Amino acid sequence: MHQTFDAALGINLLHANQAGADRNRAHFDNWGITCLNLMSSPGAGKTVILERTLASLSAEMKIAVIEGDMTTELDADRLRCYGVPVIAINTGRSCHLDSKMVAGGIHRLEHEYDPTTFDLVLVENVGNLVCPAEFEVGEHAKVALLSVTEGEDKPLKYPIMFQEADCLLITKMDLAPYLDVDISRIEANVRQINPDVTILPVSAKTGAGLQAWFEWVQLQVAAQPVLAVNC
Amino acid sequence: MHQTFDAALGINLLHANQAGADRNRAHFDNWGITCLNLMSSPGAGKTVILERTLASLSAEMKIAVIEGDMTTELDADRLRCYGVPVIAINTGRSCHLDSKMVAGGIHRLEHEYDPTTFDLVLVENVGNLVCPAEFEVGEHAKVALLSVTEGEDKPLKYPIMFQEADCLLITKMDLAPYLDVDISRIEANVRQINPDVTILPVSAKTGAGLQAWFEWVQLQVAAQPVLAVNC
Repeated sequence: MHQTFDAALGINLLHANQAGADRNRAHFDNWGITCLNLMSSPGAGKTVILERTLASLSAEMKIAVIEGDMTTELDADRLRCYGVPVIAINTGRSCHLDSKMVAGGIHRLEHEYDPTTFDLVLVENVGNLVCPAEFEVGEHAKVALLSVTEGEDKPLKYPIMFQEADCLLITKMDLAPYLDVDISRIEANVRQINPDVTILPVSAKTGAGLQAWFEWVQLQVAAQPVLAVNC
Repeated sequence: MHQTFDAALGINLLHANQAGADRNRAHFDNWGITCLNLMSSPGAGKTVILERTLASLSAEMKIAVIEGDMTTELDADRLRCYGVPVIAINTGRSCHLDSKMVAGGIHRLEHEYDPTTFDLVLVENVGNLVCPAEFEVGEHAKVALLSVTEGEDKPLKYPIMFQEADCLLITKMDLAPYLDVDISRIEANVRQINPDVTILPVSAKTGAGLQAWFEWVQLQVAAQPVLAVNC
């Protein structure tokens, strides 16, 4: 955990972050946008899952991406190929997005586009299985990814992320045959910590399981009330 | 990056951490111990590399492990099977070991064992490709692990870890045939950031490359002056 209390300013940094997240969410709600926050270790496959999601869903709903990376726009550039607005945020030395950084992204969404026309904002967080889980950014749901190569014990060893997740994608299922991994053991370890999480095993390579993920995303978008009047 | 300045206490937390790391290193130097700090994303294979290392080297040198995990002693228990002292540190919500936590481990090493009889302390850090790189713990060298499943771009996207590393193990080489991964591209990306790092591709599963890793460890231990007198 990070230093969470700034004694000089007399503020609890996590509380301040939470207040910012609530403001971000209010913006999304006003615009009728659903926001999902994707989090995982580096290399678990967030960007490729976003690529598949944009390819499949951007015809039926209007999507923007807020792309968090410490440095580079490598991932942002990959996603721009799908013809959606991608707002890149370089976090510098910060190991997670916070609500203030995402507020900057929302500001750009508001001023460079008409935010009321969007249905879905996908936030790709910095690759880190620990810290992003503690910093809400204004999302309506948290999506954690765990690749089959990371091992069955990770939900027990990094419980905060798995506790917070609304949906867990078990990624790289195509590699499972080459590993000593028991998917049901991963699921059981996650359920110990978070009995209600939706667990979806997927492979971006073969496409297996992706339909269920797309349907989960569609459900989240459907749950957000449509704007009566643009405002 | 974490909050690095505590205004109330008037201290720079990274500087305070560094002072603690220097004290830890002085202890290791006094006892003729080499300390290596292993860092990576969760699931890159730190624990299994330590298992192979203990199995191969603990007959010829006296090794202790300081095992950092947010929760559980799962990894510590795996390593205890190899008959070496394993000092477990649960970091709670903290996403990295710091020098104060490791000082606690050193205190136990000093009081529960004779530290002058040890040659090597292996520190397994919390699984996180970002924050542990900023918090020195008193090590003589930093070892980063990157598994082939994590992608070629990671050195560019998470540069601090790769900048700081003295040795990079590219792990899970046995999975490379099932991935679209170019190992020479990983190496080139790492060299952009850190031209002098030792890069060793390994597979804990097949044993490929491990001999070179063991020899690198032996070299680090040989570089530490042997104690003239127990003190």
